[in-house]
Amino acid sequence: MTCDFHALANQGIQGLHPYQAGKPTDELERELGISNIVKLASNENPLGMSPLALAAIEKATSELTRYPDSNGFYLKQALADKYGLTAEQFTLGNGSNDVLDLIARVFVSSEHEVVFSQHAFVVYPIVTQAIGAKAVVVPAKDWGHDLDAMAEAITDKTRLVFIANPNNPTGTFLSSDALYGFMQKVPENVVVVLDEAYYEYLSEDEQAPSTSWLAQFSNLVITRTFSKAYGLAGLRVGYAISSPEIADLLNRLRQPFNVNSLSLVAAVAALKDQQYLQQSIALNQQGLLLLSQFFKQNAISYIPSKGNFISFLAPSGDAQELYQQLLHKGVIVRPVGPYQMPGYLRVSIGTEQENQTFIKALSQLIGSI
Amino acid sequence: MTCDFHALANQGIQGLHPYQAGKPTDELERELGISNIVKLASNENPLGMSPLALAAIEKATSELTRYPDSNGFYLKQALADKYGLTAEQFTLGNGSNDVLDLIARVFVSSEHEVVFSQHAFVVYPIVTQAIGAKAVVVPAKDWGHDLDAMAEAITDKTRLVFIANPNNPTGTFLSSDALYGFMQKVPENVVVVLDEAYYEYLSEDEQAPSTSWLAQFSNLVITRTFSKAYGLAGLRVGYAISSPEIADLLNRLRQPFNVNSLSLVAAVAALKDQQYLQQSIALNQQGLLLLSQFFKQNAISYIPSKGNFISFLAPSGDAQELYQQLLHKGVIVRPVGPYQMPGYLRVSIGTEQENQTFIKALSQLIGSI
Repeated sequence: MTCDFHALANQGIQGLHPYQAGKPTDELERELGISNIVKLASNENPLGMSPLALAAIEKATSELTRYPDSNGFYLKQALADKYGLTAEQFTLGNGSNDVLDLIARVFVSSEHEVVFSQHAFVVYPIVTQAIGAKAVVVPAKDWGHDLDAMAEAITDKTRLVFIANPNNPTGTFLSSDALYGFMQKVPENVVVVLDEAYYEYLSEDEQAPSTSWLAQFSNLVITRTFSKAYGLAGLRVGYAISSPEIADLLNRLRQPFNVNSLSLVAAVAALKDQQYLQQSIALNQQGLLLLSQFFKQNAISYIPSKGNFISFLAPSGDAQELYQQLLHKGVIVRPVGPYQMPGYLRVSIGTEQENQTFIKALSQLIGSI
Repeated sequence: MTCDFHALANQGIQGLHPYQAGKPTDELERELGISNIVKLASNENPLGMSPLALAAIEKATSELTRYPDSNGFYLKQALADKYGLTAEQFTLGNGSNDVLDLIARVFVSSEHEVVFSQHAFVVYPIVTQAIGAKAVVVPAKDWGHDLDAMAEAITDKTRLVFIANPNNPTGTFLSSDALYGFMQKVPENVVVVLDEAYYEYLSEDEQAPSTSWLAQFSNLVITRTFSKAYGLAGLRVGYAISSPEIADLLNRLRQPFNVNSLSLVAAVAALKDQQYLQQSIALNQQGLLLLSQFFKQNAISYIPSKGNFISFLAPSGDAQELYQQLLHKGVIVRPVGPYQMPGYLRVSIGTEQENQTFIKALSQLIGSI
């Protein structure tokens, strides 16, 4: 090869390191030749998907030779009904990853700055780097976002602020008052993305009334997903809620068929299944409690979490070694080194049985049982 | 709203007009209250999907709560086997739209130029505009790409050339010799995307041995899709074939879960169903012949096509009027005004019955029967 395409690529791309996904069970099977694998690595919903969503998929398979509805008419309408907003305020994404990427590409250029917290979701630095913009990473406070410091980090060059609440992978949480106070401080020409991927796992009084703030803060964009409490990670559906003006800009850049046909119908059906949602949340609460108690009882340091995962410190301090040892016992968790959390692993909340399998494996490894 | 977010958006985005998708049948039903609609607007495969792909989807629904395999291991392996290449040469996309977008974002900045033909696939100007780069649109020759003029249009600022073969919406076709000659003329630091979305519809002796050229031309990127002859438009799977070096750059920018779980398994299964593929191609050949003969017999001007569609001139010259009249008869075709083809409509090849419905409706409207 005589031409250096790496050098030809845009500056931001040259420095880009791709997102490292959780290890799929298939891959572990191929590599280690073991079965009965428990995957607690990607904050998925262990309950499986709603039977309503499954039925909707089965019904829709006859039309898969057709392109999806590029406007996502029914899903946007269902979301608008749910939130008491209009369909024009929604931007559908191939997962919320897609809408986070769109927001950055619409508003940020290489001369701009993007503000987010240390230990925050790794897609924020990735989309910033892809554009070649400057990432302003604000040191965390007690593992969580330091909103005062984040407000102070905003300059004339700042176009975008990412806030994850609850945050992945720390599970930390910002109160409604704190968020509202932050919004009041941010200049209106700085777009604030409030990433609420794990919103449904919060108790009702913990949930910020963020959609009601849209009327007051035209620079607010809320992102949510069907990949967590709604159990549709494999289908890739996320969305942004914003002013119609911002939604119009995002939808210009959005690939017209970014959400596929089965995902559209499954998401509409999943929205209707409140019973499934409540079961998911209850299962998660039980699992959070079980694992927290286990960590406490075994003097394993962990970060109290409001999500569907807990980050904990490998007792030896060597997270990679413990990760590998757990893999060999058929349990996949996630090392969170790329989040500047050396020594930590993140375990997703599974089913009762999956959680017990994790506890048993970890107990054997640390010799506590 | 006090802040002008339109003005805050990046220059390229401000000038972006979103892709206009073909009208979904649902939408027409809602608008006109008619049923039994024939959609011949989006170059989809009228045969429906392969039963193997459907079976694969049904089998995979139990795992939809999990994230997709971000590496698309099995699909890339199946593609590598099919082409006698390595998995490292493939980049999977959420439709080939996604990979076309990735290629432009990796190599093109606002100071660069992108060369493509007049009447070429509309995603090329969209991705160029989104970056704020300069589109160099080379006038078509007999509705097709003028490769000599395209080679001459390349300057020091050119980073990317898009070639569609066959081209949508004209259905025009470039011979293997012409393409090879073009590749020899292009400087090696200019990436050439050979978009072969409709490749499978060509006869074997018309199909360029383009994948064998990759060893010679490191700047060649071939894109193909499962949305056409493989009948999976609703599932969104396309891919790029290139050098491992270019694939590495594309995969850095690719969203990690851009292809969903069902699409991955359906595409692997679809690749295996050669019988379905041959049926699709045969059905398309029959339909192309039928519609071509109809246009000829009725003295309707049309562009001979190698794709799964034909563009024809509305006898009155008013394509929008004819489009509306066909809609009211329950037949959706596509006006191709945005392609600088005023007066033209594009009809996709349907099933035998769908084609007859179209012929009957058009005949009634032009009063020829």
